[in-house]
Amino acid sequence: MLNYQKYKHVPVLDYKERQWPNKEIQKAPIWCSVDLRDGNQALIEPMVVEEKLEFFNLLVKLGFKEIEIGFPSASQLEYDFLRTLVDRKMIPDDVRVQILCQCRQHLIDKSFEAIKGIKNVVFHIYNSTSTLQRDVVFHMNREEIKQIAIEGTRMVKEGAKNFDGNLWLEYSPESFTGTEMDFALEVCEAVKEVWQPTVERPIIFNLPATVEMNTPNVYADQIEWMSSHFTEREKIILSIHPHNDRGCGVAATELALLAGAERVEGTLFGNGERTGNVDILNVAYNMFSQGINPELNIENVNEIIEVTERCTKMGVPPRHPYAGKLVFTAFSGSHQDAISKGMQALHERNSAIWEVPYLPIDPSDVGREYEPLVRINSQSGKGGVAFVLEQYYGFKLPKEMHKELADKIQAMSETQGEVSPEQIMDTFRNMYIDAKEPLHFRKARIEDISDDQGKYDTKVILTYTDHGEERVIEGFGNGPIDAVKHGLCRQSGFHTKLTMYHEHALTLGSDSQAASYIELVNSDTGASAYGVGISSNINRSSFRAIFSALNRLFYPEA
Amino acid sequence: MLNYQKYKHVPVLDYKERQWPNKEIQKAPIWCSVDLRDGNQALIEPMVVEEKLEFFNLLVKLGFKEIEIGFPSASQLEYDFLRTLVDRKMIPDDVRVQILCQCRQHLIDKSFEAIKGIKNVVFHIYNSTSTLQRDVVFHMNREEIKQIAIEGTRMVKEGAKNFDGNLWLEYSPESFTGTEMDFALEVCEAVKEVWQPTVERPIIFNLPATVEMNTPNVYADQIEWMSSHFTEREKIILSIHPHNDRGCGVAATELALLAGAERVEGTLFGNGERTGNVDILNVAYNMFSQGINPELNIENVNEIIEVTERCTKMGVPPRHPYAGKLVFTAFSGSHQDAISKGMQALHERNSAIWEVPYLPIDPSDVGREYEPLVRINSQSGKGGVAFVLEQYYGFKLPKEMHKELADKIQAMSETQGEVSPEQIMDTFRNMYIDAKEPLHFRKARIEDISDDQGKYDTKVILTYTDHGEERVIEGFGNGPIDAVKHGLCRQSGFHTKLTMYHEHALTLGSDSQAASYIELVNSDTGASAYGVGISSNINRSSFRAIFSALNRLFYPEA
Repeated sequence: MLNYQKYKHVPVLDYKERQWPNKEIQKAPIWCSVDLRDGNQALIEPMVVEEKLEFFNLLVKLGFKEIEIGFPSASQLEYDFLRTLVDRKMIPDDVRVQILCQCRQHLIDKSFEAIKGIKNVVFHIYNSTSTLQRDVVFHMNREEIKQIAIEGTRMVKEGAKNFDGNLWLEYSPESFTGTEMDFALEVCEAVKEVWQPTVERPIIFNLPATVEMNTPNVYADQIEWMSSHFTEREKIILSIHPHNDRGCGVAATELALLAGAERVEGTLFGNGERTGNVDILNVAYNMFSQGINPELNIENVNEIIEVTERCTKMGVPPRHPYAGKLVFTAFSGSHQDAISKGMQALHERNSAIWEVPYLPIDPSDVGREYEPLVRINSQSGKGGVAFVLEQYYGFKLPKEMHKELADKIQAMSETQGEVSPEQIMDTFRNMYIDAKEPLHFRKARIEDISDDQGKYDTKVILTYTDHGEERVIEGFGNGPIDAVKHGLCRQSGFHTKLTMYHEHALTLGSDSQAASYIELVNSDTGASAYGVGISSNINRSSFRAIFSALNRLFYPEA
Repeated sequence: MLNYQKYKHVPVLDYKERQWPNKEIQKAPIWCSVDLRDGNQALIEPMVVEEKLEFFNLLVKLGFKEIEIGFPSASQLEYDFLRTLVDRKMIPDDVRVQILCQCRQHLIDKSFEAIKGIKNVVFHIYNSTSTLQRDVVFHMNREEIKQIAIEGTRMVKEGAKNFDGNLWLEYSPESFTGTEMDFALEVCEAVKEVWQPTVERPIIFNLPATVEMNTPNVYADQIEWMSSHFTEREKIILSIHPHNDRGCGVAATELALLAGAERVEGTLFGNGERTGNVDILNVAYNMFSQGINPELNIENVNEIIEVTERCTKMGVPPRHPYAGKLVFTAFSGSHQDAISKGMQALHERNSAIWEVPYLPIDPSDVGREYEPLVRINSQSGKGGVAFVLEQYYGFKLPKEMHKELADKIQAMSETQGEVSPEQIMDTFRNMYIDAKEPLHFRKARIEDISDDQGKYDTKVILTYTDHGEERVIEGFGNGPIDAVKHGLCRQSGFHTKLTMYHEHALTLGSDSQAASYIELVNSDTGASAYGVGISSNINRSSFRAIFSALNRLFYPEA
């Protein structure tokens, strides 16, 4: 029996004045990466210095202007890493390095030692303010907890007097989501009173969902409540730091942005304690997909994946939004068909705006490929097979032919699982293009006889082999295909009707290969067969298609 | 450059009358698993029949009462699978089997053939209603699209006349989130008009986020708008089918439940096309964590993971809520410390309600263990090391000793990465318990001399070896420890003060091992050292602790 009675409903804020559900996200927030701190601390193998340096460079390249690098007063490793960044002059002038520190004198002193010589620093102090932690961890009342924050702020203010660079204070009432709103506000206001921020040098109040405790609308209510109750709001940057315990970290971030948050702390692909931090890339790509500039240089998701996976030794799951291996795929036949039609419409209309069913974004915009879009398994339909053939190999299979090939592919997939594009092409080739025996087209001479004023305008002298024996016949018709068909009918006894004919270039240019598709119906039995031929000569490609169809029609066992 | 201008803002519904943000989730919805259809179709290796049968049994065991098994009219595999379920009598009487079908006569006929002999069936028909698909895929106007739904409903109604079991109709306006609300309503109302549902046999209207297109509050607005605009609402079950393209599938589901949805279609761990369907387990565990009965038998997450991973060949990512390998871990020192204190408070207060910092649920409630809670890496603090020692091995290390051991472990982790519990225990043993040379306790006879009316009540005759040479000394004191210490001081020249002493049983029962922890200070130099001893005899364990401390104090190099 599931022991659900052991848990209580986490109380929600009664805040019917909320305005955020009427809003829409309009612009990117300030992004702060905490990969090198919150992300790194939760890795089975935390990064070594060289990996941290590479990751830091990646973050700079992606356009992060605020990067939390760790807790240098508590970890010699992180202290040394920070000094290495300074010594190697790796911190661009427009990037603020952020350090985390508890509200304790010796740690704050050590932190000031660590940031010496850095131009722009966010000094991030915190203490836990939640009812639960006050009770079971600190055994302190509200006033005592508030004093920790006030004292910490004083210590930083004192230390800052001897610091040469630009320093911003960030204060986090840790475990904010488990804190009474009025108390969180009271502590922040007390910190602000000590710090005395200005409009030019605002204070950062970071309100973390240290543990995600409720549906994401509740977090939004809390953020809007705080945002609308702060005094001197213009001197505050409202920051959020969402975790993902309930699987709603991205949603909580987005709703909090609607609710007035101006800054987001998170990590690439959501590393962090337990279920992780919010995935900044997911939020940023969501903005991108809505036509909003995410103000990050994330046009190459493969590179971001490669560096992150190598440094963190954590994989990106296959269904991870925008980044997973399977997210730009469509296995279902109807999805594949709709994608195919959507892409065609987009192309035909030459539209500047991306709109394709089942594909929220164009994979090529983030450095992914079209090709793996459509995956063929036993659940796929005929549209998918045709799509693969066209996208990978350029064959625009006529609609009439879809079912025959798709049935063959589906039978394969039911025994073997996924069928690769190569296997689809091989099957297509075997079934049609290579259907060259026992009737094998060899050559044809085409004569224009329109001057003869007879019934036909074309004469073809056709050479082919039948079970290896050469035959030469003549055919007359209107156009070469018609002439060959008539010749085969009259002189060789293959009585057929041509019921479908398509042809297209496989590539651009005058020396391009052409593909021809033909359907012949046996005039005596009514049976029909498709044939395909390719050649750089369009006559030859269509003759080959006729012979392919002939072989399949009269010698189906061959 | 990121090509964000290529995308348009997806329009939102202007619906300020919304009530859902004022609500809280109170009870579980009807759950419908679509693992065997939507989930299965997006697998690289779709399940074979035996795997499907096992998966179906798992779903039944978990308590699903509605299970979509596939598209039997379009796939021979799924047709055969359904007939196997019937033939083997695997469908419980209280489970409704759901089949998916397009609104086409021959498919509907084949579907009725497939469900012959089944007691309870949800017949699920759909067609795409979105503006985009009407335009680029179907080239039909609203009226024509509506007619597809009406005709499909008529066909099912006709077919149902000859069906012996109970049949519910489900209609999905596919790509609902891309459909104008008034049109989605119009189509549903038209379907209802044909079907004529009753309060006793309501119709299921399933409103899918086929592609997640906006922040999850927008989906909630859409659901509430539909819910409040339907006529004969009491004859409708409002179902949702959220996908996860923007990483907000769980959030969208929860907000839609606030907005009036009564039924959720999704999969275990979120399999499904692209980024997948909503993970029903995630939503259910979220309810569970708030004291709401999720009405699923999900108390053994490991079993669910095992069967799912084996059948789908998809892994559960390490940070997946409630199920990932890392979600019940805490690497950060302060988190570990708070968890440790929270668990202690819970224990001491004998509380019926779970409240532990950083741990939304008790892992043991879902079949997970306490042990892997705390993982030790270079980012971990002393609280974590002590916690591991206690949780794994029962040693309640006194607070004074935390730092010495943790420093040693941190140094290890900085070179090797994560430190295992075994390594922590080995280090602890090497440092303290095995510190038995050069002074090695051998035996002691304890005499009660309280009748002597002298200064002391205890005499100890102690045998030990010093660099292998046996020594026998006498000591007097108040209690055995005091007596040994005095004897070692006066007769052996080890001048020490005892500044800390703790002892506890390692296990229950009278033959339990005891652990003793002692701190000795060198009276001459002021240096101090900790010692630990274990024995089933509490005197012996404390003597061993004294010798451990003596060796570490006077022979630190040994």
